[in-house]
Amino acid sequence: MTQYSSFANGGITLIKPYQAGKPIEEVQRELGLSDVIKLASNENPFGMSQMAKKAAFEAIEQGNLYPDSNGYYLKQKLLSKFGYNPERITLGAGSNELINLLFEAFVNKDVNVIFPEYSFVVYPMETTVNGALAKVIPLKNYCADLEAILAAIDSRTRIIAFANPSNPIGTAISSKDMYNFLKKVPKETLVVIDEAYNEFNRGDDSFEDTAKWLDEFENLIVSRTFSKAYGLAGLRVGYMLANPEITSILNRLRAPFNVNIAALAAACAALDDKEFLDKTVENNTRERVRYAEFCKKNSLFMIPSFANFVAIDFKDYDASAIADRLLHMGVIVRPLLGYKLKTILRISIGTPHENDRFFKCVETILKDMKN
Amino acid sequence: MTQYSSFANGGITLIKPYQAGKPIEEVQRELGLSDVIKLASNENPFGMSQMAKKAAFEAIEQGNLYPDSNGYYLKQKLLSKFGYNPERITLGAGSNELINLLFEAFVNKDVNVIFPEYSFVVYPMETTVNGALAKVIPLKNYCADLEAILAAIDSRTRIIAFANPSNPIGTAISSKDMYNFLKKVPKETLVVIDEAYNEFNRGDDSFEDTAKWLDEFENLIVSRTFSKAYGLAGLRVGYMLANPEITSILNRLRAPFNVNIAALAAACAALDDKEFLDKTVENNTRERVRYAEFCKKNSLFMIPSFANFVAIDFKDYDASAIADRLLHMGVIVRPLLGYKLKTILRISIGTPHENDRFFKCVETILKDMKN
Repeated sequence: MTQYSSFANGGITLIKPYQAGKPIEEVQRELGLSDVIKLASNENPFGMSQMAKKAAFEAIEQGNLYPDSNGYYLKQKLLSKFGYNPERITLGAGSNELINLLFEAFVNKDVNVIFPEYSFVVYPMETTVNGALAKVIPLKNYCADLEAILAAIDSRTRIIAFANPSNPIGTAISSKDMYNFLKKVPKETLVVIDEAYNEFNRGDDSFEDTAKWLDEFENLIVSRTFSKAYGLAGLRVGYMLANPEITSILNRLRAPFNVNIAALAAACAALDDKEFLDKTVENNTRERVRYAEFCKKNSLFMIPSFANFVAIDFKDYDASAIADRLLHMGVIVRPLLGYKLKTILRISIGTPHENDRFFKCVETILKDMKN
Repeated sequence: MTQYSSFANGGITLIKPYQAGKPIEEVQRELGLSDVIKLASNENPFGMSQMAKKAAFEAIEQGNLYPDSNGYYLKQKLLSKFGYNPERITLGAGSNELINLLFEAFVNKDVNVIFPEYSFVVYPMETTVNGALAKVIPLKNYCADLEAILAAIDSRTRIIAFANPSNPIGTAISSKDMYNFLKKVPKETLVVIDEAYNEFNRGDDSFEDTAKWLDEFENLIVSRTFSKAYGLAGLRVGYMLANPEITSILNRLRAPFNVNIAALAAACAALDDKEFLDKTVENNTRERVRYAEFCKKNSLFMIPSFANFVAIDFKDYDASAIADRLLHMGVIVRPLLGYKLKTILRISIGTPHENDRFFKCVETILKDMKN
């Protein structure tokens, strides 16, 4: 038998497949449960905007035709809504694809990549796949340590990647700190800020749109998704903002029809549905407070969150045992074993009803564990 | 200004962006036309199966949830319909993504890739992107020259890639010739047969399903799409069949949610709609004969086609001028300038009504040109 793995490029064979949150139907199938809720993948608990759904349906009526390879209407919508220049936009099947493309384009065995510990798993995976050295910087107070990141930069640092708000932790760097950080990064090092949870990180006067700084920082790259606040995770669409030269490279590298017609149409419509977005963000902000109250009441440590999920540190308890108990009660949450965080669970903030169910289940489990 | 292009890997900056067929709405917008038909991208002229559409709509009702990363139901359907083992299946957003992944995994500056002249543009693009040498083998009677391909193989040949039926020409290699060819290729060289147009290549007793040979040829890779006969081009879904080791590598490399929920659901349903597939193939076979008759009548040379398009060689006429005239008459076809085939147009076979319109327009143009 020929060893085809030995022909594979870079570090592909070194990575493990991504472990996705279990789909509801898989849990139902495996455990014989009917009433299952998923608080594991930071999805929108209200579904998607009705306007987006209608647009997706209309698009599918012409689903036999290839999508517009240039995503003309979505780029125009991003221009009119936020002032983002189409020359700076690359569209992708979720921000995951865009991050993959960026690493495929710029990362190789001669460079290194810096990211904080407990980052989105895709950064270390893509660093390894492309054969580069990863410089992993420990968090400081559960937050990306910007000073330590700056200190780690050397002449071979091609990319600094981090999410803001962070995932799977949920902390955020302020606009002021981010701006000062960007001023200190050499232009030869690309800074990718993955803003998948951006829409949940507001309500503070000092918040600024990072993308407004693209003119000032030619090495700044901002990644966004429609999977979270806009509720289009199943359709796969996101965008990456960068200088026109980098954008041109990403657009050459992507498959010409990488974003499907339903996603393109739904994303356009979703940007117009302010009411749905407001409802989503308001519920999230309100319920995040209830999670904090629940944790306080039960002497659990919740890391301050600026995203649509909370990370709870169960300290003395085995978090994966709790996750397993929750699973058998029909509540899917995310253990962070893949991140080697054995005592922490990540829980997506759901509807008030879903969160109540989570609170009740955890209280039952904690009571059992104490007995 | 920093030259970010100089940081890009391999041959990315050497390739030009893929030129997609113009979308109908773009032609309408640019030329101020209302009644435009597109015979340019080999799409299904009957739309998609109603069963597939219904399945896509149902899936979108849960479009806020991530797709099943493993594509469980679609793989099970491919197993039950065709006997394809899920361990051999990688799902992708169209076969384009799968070919990109395969090249990303196995092609690099130390190897070469063999493909016939006038192949799907993605093969030369991905060869260049990954920094490899391309060995381009001229066609023989408009067909892949298997003997010449075998003669070109050396110890550095990592991949042989070709489409069967071929694109943009439409010719096909018989099952018997393909089998004998595969027997002669060394196991260290992967053979990718891109069968995007497979469903249109039947009606001959000697036809065999290439995928049945996967057990015998561990270096065989078969790529399929739902974009053509199944009419799901806009949704983006295809699959690649290979030995389990290669499949495992591709599944590690792909983004975990690379196929959207609407596509997964529609593909499952489309496989069950035999009636729609039969109607599509029957119309195509019948209309292909009408194209041949039209060409004969007008002294035009049509290359024998086994796909859902025909390549017509206008010989003394400038094909791109004809394509431009057709465009202004509201008929989008595909000039093959990107392939340096200046006298050939590729026309997707449409409904009888669409084909009549094409015939009439071409007759008008030829008459004008003769005067």
